[in-house]
Amino acid sequence: MALVVQKYGGSSVGDADSLHRVARRIVQTREAGHDVAVVVSAMGDTTDDLLDLTRQITREPTARELDMLLTAGERISMALLAMAIHELDHPAVSFTGAQAGLRTTDDFGAARILEVTPDRITETLRSGAVAIVAGFQGWSDDDVTTLGRGGSDTTAVALAAALDADVCEIYTDVDGLYSADPRVVSHAQQLPVLTSEEALELSAHGAKILHLRSVELARRHGVPLHVRSSFGTGAGTWVTDDPTVVPPDHPTVPGSNREESVEEPVISGVAHSHDQSKVTVVGVPDVPGTAAAIFAVMTGAVSTVDMVGQTHTAADTGLIDFSFALPVEDGRRAMDALRAAQERLGFADITYTDAVGKVSVVGVGMRSTPEVPAQLFEALAQAGITVHLIATSEIRLSAVVDEDQLEEATRVLHEAFGLGAEDEAVVHAGSGR
Amino acid sequence: MALVVQKYGGSSVGDADSLHRVARRIVQTREAGHDVAVVVSAMGDTTDDLLDLTRQITREPTARELDMLLTAGERISMALLAMAIHELDHPAVSFTGAQAGLRTTDDFGAARILEVTPDRITETLRSGAVAIVAGFQGWSDDDVTTLGRGGSDTTAVALAAALDADVCEIYTDVDGLYSADPRVVSHAQQLPVLTSEEALELSAHGAKILHLRSVELARRHGVPLHVRSSFGTGAGTWVTDDPTVVPPDHPTVPGSNREESVEEPVISGVAHSHDQSKVTVVGVPDVPGTAAAIFAVMTGAVSTVDMVGQTHTAADTGLIDFSFALPVEDGRRAMDALRAAQERLGFADITYTDAVGKVSVVGVGMRSTPEVPAQLFEALAQAGITVHLIATSEIRLSAVVDEDQLEEATRVLHEAFGLGAEDEAVVHAGSGR
Repeated sequence: MALVVQKYGGSSVGDADSLHRVARRIVQTREAGHDVAVVVSAMGDTTDDLLDLTRQITREPTARELDMLLTAGERISMALLAMAIHELDHPAVSFTGAQAGLRTTDDFGAARILEVTPDRITETLRSGAVAIVAGFQGWSDDDVTTLGRGGSDTTAVALAAALDADVCEIYTDVDGLYSADPRVVSHAQQLPVLTSEEALELSAHGAKILHLRSVELARRHGVPLHVRSSFGTGAGTWVTDDPTVVPPDHPTVPGSNREESVEEPVISGVAHSHDQSKVTVVGVPDVPGTAAAIFAVMTGAVSTVDMVGQTHTAADTGLIDFSFALPVEDGRRAMDALRAAQERLGFADITYTDAVGKVSVVGVGMRSTPEVPAQLFEALAQAGITVHLIATSEIRLSAVVDEDQLEEATRVLHEAFGLGAEDEAVVHAGSGR
Repeated sequence: MALVVQKYGGSSVGDADSLHRVARRIVQTREAGHDVAVVVSAMGDTTDDLLDLTRQITREPTARELDMLLTAGERISMALLAMAIHELDHPAVSFTGAQAGLRTTDDFGAARILEVTPDRITETLRSGAVAIVAGFQGWSDDDVTTLGRGGSDTTAVALAAALDADVCEIYTDVDGLYSADPRVVSHAQQLPVLTSEEALELSAHGAKILHLRSVELARRHGVPLHVRSSFGTGAGTWVTDDPTVVPPDHPTVPGSNREESVEEPVISGVAHSHDQSKVTVVGVPDVPGTAAAIFAVMTGAVSTVDMVGQTHTAADTGLIDFSFALPVEDGRRAMDALRAAQERLGFADITYTDAVGKVSVVGVGMRSTPEVPAQLFEALAQAGITVHLIATSEIRLSAVVDEDQLEEATRVLHEAFGLGAEDEAVVHAGSGR
């Protein structure tokens, strides 16, 4: 008997039929002898509908009131889900974020969880009932807060950590994480197991299934994640650093074309991201301290600077160019900050483009395989794809390329690192959302 | 400067435009120098929509979960209303029932208020902001409860009592209480002032504008009510036993055709109710104790028995009939209880009909005017309307008549007691709901 936290996103609870299906799945887990705490998002379009209403009222909603409004969404889905479970003759009780003990900072709209004291959840599970908890929300000083992007996943992982759950199952509309986005790479294959570090890098650099924030939290607290489809019965993807938690009958080899390999794959997956921009500071005097000054301006303006390239414009001018890759929402902000400091920094000009994208290869095997950068450059060069910038972590290598070559680059690298399955990927998507 | 509690019902906040209109009215009250606490219901059809969703999930929703679900409705309206007030550059903060300190019994779906500790409301008003409170909801032992029918009015009155407010304004889609339902009596006139007892009797016997429960609460705590239209600017109806709280410029005479009268009207209004049934116990042995036994059975089965008529079937049989008038939802239940006791009580048969209605005339002047019953019988008799049963309180006289004569009876009594205005009533109804 295990303690299982299950999280169902908005597309898994889009309407009454979906709620019934989710209820059956929860009851099956109960009947298999497990304790089940469920974290649920707002139904399908509820949040969008509430935001539409808000726009009819004001263009600048107060953050506190917006949180009060949006938390109505989970209240609806969680109460209906509890009823749907009752309908199957199993007890279930729903709880708001506050009732579940999720205390947060008072940053309305983007609150961080400070503490989880799930006394009522523990009590409910002990009584033999299913506990249903509203995702995405908490409380701070008797006010309702929301956790912002990826909030429901974060709720689920935080609750799993506080309950010391055996696993946190993330149900979504696809059946796990893939070696690449199957909409771009037709032979992408579902990944059976990833380390938390790999999942972190994939999520941070374009894979959209898991929210970076929840993967970080799961990693920090050692919570095993199991990503599954709420529409199918596939094996899903485990994200864990402890191989013993993965059931013995779970698939272990990514695809049939890799079965002959005795080694673990070097690269687990390829992520890509369209939402990139490139800022180039042109004609910077090549004197000590300039690079540091430019960095200081950048880091004051934006959240993360992922990649830097430095090129001499001409050997005899004593001027250099700096290029940065940034998420597109940060690009303009960085440019404004740099322009404001142009006189002090003494550079000639700035150029900006968002017609770039980023492709990243991720795998723990990179640590022991120094050939990866060479393989990447060679594969892209053979395909006629120019690399503008490059960045690495211990287990990731990212390249910025022209946006119109991004998907081709993704396919090329997926193939070059031998990730392709023999068959086309079949994604069990329910609503197509 | 006064402390004003304003309550806006669902039809007053049906959409974004209505919310903007309500916000402007609240801001006007603020700008007139008053402190304003607002109680708001769920928007228009929200509750019905949530109940529709519920029916797609289960036919027997758990009471606790149903309350969790339905309280999402006020959460939406109150947050949007706060935003709409901000949009007019006034501060406003919304509060759930729990945050506003409404502690209730744990009777989910029909909770009673135990205590109101509106510390956060007081604090908010002191800070110069408008406090917006969710109607219809409270909390009990950290669970969310709803107050059932008339809940938002009840919230408003309870809050007004706890805050020691100067007035509780009930905004609705009509501009006050009328001498009769204007849809039935075209010359019905708006009543400027009623005593709490009159409002109580009118509400209890068919007038639908105020909920009986909130009028009782207002009476007990001495909270002056002011019923107004949220769509127009009419003077509205005051319900109070303290004439000094009514502003001096408020109309005092019901209608132009009564201006010559130096006396207060004997009858203030006529209420009618379609939802009535008549149960007759036929052939009851006329021996001591039988009536008491029948009553005991009835009072065990139903909430209120309003009227009783006793008729000898024939002088020589020694048998009598008892008739009762009951709200239609109680009628069948009473009949079942009586049938179960038929052997013990020894009666011959029971008849039941719901093709009856009740018309009631109400007025504090009845205390000093013993002619009212005679006038009522005469007026109805002249119009060819048969009275089946009759009941009285100190200030009310009710008659049960055939349902197809009910509206005619209402018009006849309205006319007979001189309540008609010279012009047809113009009801400022917004949505027609």
